[in-house]
Amino acid sequence: MSFPSIRVAVSAASRATSLLRTVQFTHPPSCPCHSNPSHHHHHSPSSSSRLSQHVRHLATPLDPSHQKEYAFEMAASSIRFGPGSTKEVGMDMKNIGAKRVCVVTDKTVKKLDAMRNVIEALEREGVEYTIYDGVRVKPKDSSIKHAIAFAKPYNADAFLAVGGGSVIDTAKLMNLYCVYPEADFLDFVNAPLGKGLPIAKPLKPLIAIPTTAGTGSETTGTAIFDLVSKGAKTGIAHRHMKPTLGICDPLNTRTMPSAVHASSGLDVLCHSLESWTAIPFYERTPRPTNPINRPAYQGANPISDIFSLQALRSTVKYLPRAVKDPEDFEAQSQMLLAATLAGVGFGNAGVHLCHGMSYPISSQNTDYKHQGYAVDYPIIPHGVSVAVTAPAVFKFTAASNPDRHLAAAEAFGKDISNVKKESAGEVLSEAIAEFLVALGDQPRGLKALGFNSGHIEGLIEGTIPQQRVLNLAPSLSKELGAEKEELRKLFEESLEY
Amino acid sequence: MSFPSIRVAVSAASRATSLLRTVQFTHPPSCPCHSNPSHHHHHSPSSSSRLSQHVRHLATPLDPSHQKEYAFEMAASSIRFGPGSTKEVGMDMKNIGAKRVCVVTDKTVKKLDAMRNVIEALEREGVEYTIYDGVRVKPKDSSIKHAIAFAKPYNADAFLAVGGGSVIDTAKLMNLYCVYPEADFLDFVNAPLGKGLPIAKPLKPLIAIPTTAGTGSETTGTAIFDLVSKGAKTGIAHRHMKPTLGICDPLNTRTMPSAVHASSGLDVLCHSLESWTAIPFYERTPRPTNPINRPAYQGANPISDIFSLQALRSTVKYLPRAVKDPEDFEAQSQMLLAATLAGVGFGNAGVHLCHGMSYPISSQNTDYKHQGYAVDYPIIPHGVSVAVTAPAVFKFTAASNPDRHLAAAEAFGKDISNVKKESAGEVLSEAIAEFLVALGDQPRGLKALGFNSGHIEGLIEGTIPQQRVLNLAPSLSKELGAEKEELRKLFEESLEY
Repeated sequence: MSFPSIRVAVSAASRATSLLRTVQFTHPPSCPCHSNPSHHHHHSPSSSSRLSQHVRHLATPLDPSHQKEYAFEMAASSIRFGPGSTKEVGMDMKNIGAKRVCVVTDKTVKKLDAMRNVIEALEREGVEYTIYDGVRVKPKDSSIKHAIAFAKPYNADAFLAVGGGSVIDTAKLMNLYCVYPEADFLDFVNAPLGKGLPIAKPLKPLIAIPTTAGTGSETTGTAIFDLVSKGAKTGIAHRHMKPTLGICDPLNTRTMPSAVHASSGLDVLCHSLESWTAIPFYERTPRPTNPINRPAYQGANPISDIFSLQALRSTVKYLPRAVKDPEDFEAQSQMLLAATLAGVGFGNAGVHLCHGMSYPISSQNTDYKHQGYAVDYPIIPHGVSVAVTAPAVFKFTAASNPDRHLAAAEAFGKDISNVKKESAGEVLSEAIAEFLVALGDQPRGLKALGFNSGHIEGLIEGTIPQQRVLNLAPSLSKELGAEKEELRKLFEESLEY
Repeated sequence: MSFPSIRVAVSAASRATSLLRTVQFTHPPSCPCHSNPSHHHHHSPSSSSRLSQHVRHLATPLDPSHQKEYAFEMAASSIRFGPGSTKEVGMDMKNIGAKRVCVVTDKTVKKLDAMRNVIEALEREGVEYTIYDGVRVKPKDSSIKHAIAFAKPYNADAFLAVGGGSVIDTAKLMNLYCVYPEADFLDFVNAPLGKGLPIAKPLKPLIAIPTTAGTGSETTGTAIFDLVSKGAKTGIAHRHMKPTLGICDPLNTRTMPSAVHASSGLDVLCHSLESWTAIPFYERTPRPTNPINRPAYQGANPISDIFSLQALRSTVKYLPRAVKDPEDFEAQSQMLLAATLAGVGFGNAGVHLCHGMSYPISSQNTDYKHQGYAVDYPIIPHGVSVAVTAPAVFKFTAASNPDRHLAAAEAFGKDISNVKKESAGEVLSEAIAEFLVALGDQPRGLKALGFNSGHIEGLIEGTIPQQRVLNLAPSLSKELGAEKEELRKLFEESLEY
């Protein structure tokens, strides 16, 4: 019974209790016990006798003198999984009473079987629909505003997204701004770039049918886009934006080229690694004064942990097969499930450094065109830009919680029975690098993507605005100067692995 | 890497793929491969090359010539977990725009801190409310109709349940019949006792605040009651009945007496064991012709598995502590989380024999009054009536899937490294019995509850109407005569353990 990942899985669940201690003892915010998350993994049994003396503190969750979070909230879309289940969507729309459906897709997906099946299903049930096929990969605020302008006059009573993350994210935003037609676009955009207002009203039903196994957007309340006016990647995130139902039909991901399997799968890999290692929810500040302000990206918690670790294990097992054999339908199907599980995990825990650093990597690309992507412009696929820093990132974050990093290394097949805690980062970093190399066709660092040390300053500046995710990064300094130095080291180390 | 529970956990997730095979090969329904669920756990890699030849079958999910299910659907309430989070509910109600809240509770809970905190929270936010405190333990149709009659004229725009499973279940039904005021009570009751109509319309928001760590009702769309006119336990189950939000506040379960901790925890134990061992979803018949008819109790699936196994592990670890030490707040808190996780598991997979057999055990009780229950009438607590058959049940079901039963035995701490598959049932049965004995104050069989072999015929007759759960029982015969014989053996073996 000393198998470490079991121990960690159990202790992961047992972290529920840490929250009790976190709120119970009136440490000042600077107490070292609180600034070192790993501390919370070694409770002395004697502390439980002290608990009853502190009940009064427990009874004051909204007490503003307590800075840190004391609760977590899990929300996820309903998920249907089955090969061919796309064909049910006409009945679903009829069942929810939808009479005018706005179907959202892009020009590539529009030609695929997925869309053909969707349209047949709607027509079979006599559900009226319109199709918006203008979604662009990596949406900008301008392309989203275009989509919203299309949707508003149609007055849909339900939305149906068929495509990858860009399509599903765009559909969420069309839904949002049709329900809030008078709102300024920046009202709901994450602060500090936008006003970050909570979404108070429920939106219209949205059914999402993913055609890639990557973003997990079918389960989350998050939509990501480029805010061109501010030169930054940002987004809108709120539980009310999550789809009503995600229909995960493994037949729909068969059309992905191998290179898309690989980069989508690397997104899944980092979703699970980042949410698994994010700061625990009870370390997040500020404690919300109203539950509607509790962010979806709330830090690791005992329920997100279950999803993140399972998704990591599945990805390690099935992604290499899905990439190498286009006929390996089992592996493809498992990757679609893993993407959804990881979506529930990071959708309720958050991501951190790999994602925060990936946005400038993608947007500051000038020349690199990823192999296997049939486009006529430079592109660093999202998953590639995320994974390229992973070996450096998890070496850096390991000190925050060596046990978790060792459990992750073990998920990659490393024998960790004799690994010391101090080496957890080294071992996990090596495991990730080996995995990326074995996967094939992956750039071995930022240099291979066309960056050199002269670009690092720009990459740092592009990362700093991602405070929403950087806040969840373990080990990262809160002080801007120190934070920039740490990011610099991470980018430098990511030049080559 | 040969640790069996890891292997099983991974293969649990990998069962997603079994569904592909199930629908792909055109076995007649009598094919032995389909009637033996364990068969599906040993796929030969060569089968994947055959998959592509069968895509046409995959593309016909609603083809009535295919009898068995091909998809699963996961739905769960949002879950908030944190000590003191009850106090947030006033803001939650205000956030969803509720202006008239029907608070549902019972006369015992009404006096507890949980209710005091709820009322304070509503009043602080100026939310109007009324209180229905007439819920009775183990509700009957008459008590539910009484509650509905109370609710209808109040015209609530949201419901708030504060209590155990009986309270939360009653609140679900009040909500349902207020949204369908013209419906006959039997319209939505599970067939064959009722008409089993699907619930087409969304209900009003319902927030559930459990005060016991047992039923998991805060996450499920199920409500159970005695249908007195038919002399049977039945219920209503539909995804639309699930609460909008479950607020799991460990402070609210501190008031449970030790005996209630024990029996509620045994309910959690059986929820997780039964859902983990239920037939796989792809063995369930019939394949629904409309997704609205896909039952919530759909058989084990790769997502419910994650919840069920984690809940089992937590229960084994924390229930004994929660029962023995009323000050062990960590264990109590973990049991509340485990109850919720098990709720998501069985709420999407179902329960089977222990629950099916428990209803006549409880209702045909004449004399037994469980120790630690301060009531003046005979009572076999639900958890006790469920767990008393567990040693016999899982010995019987093990042949359907020895690996899963071994993984469960391992969750109880058994070393299974040298256990043969044929002994899986024996080993798990022994583990459960030892656990019950060590927990203390548990009847060692039906005899201790006042039953003898003369009662078995009545117990069998009381179990047969529970087809909704019996359908999910692995190893159980479909033919009535054989089924009765199997139940007879299970009851006989449960007389003493």
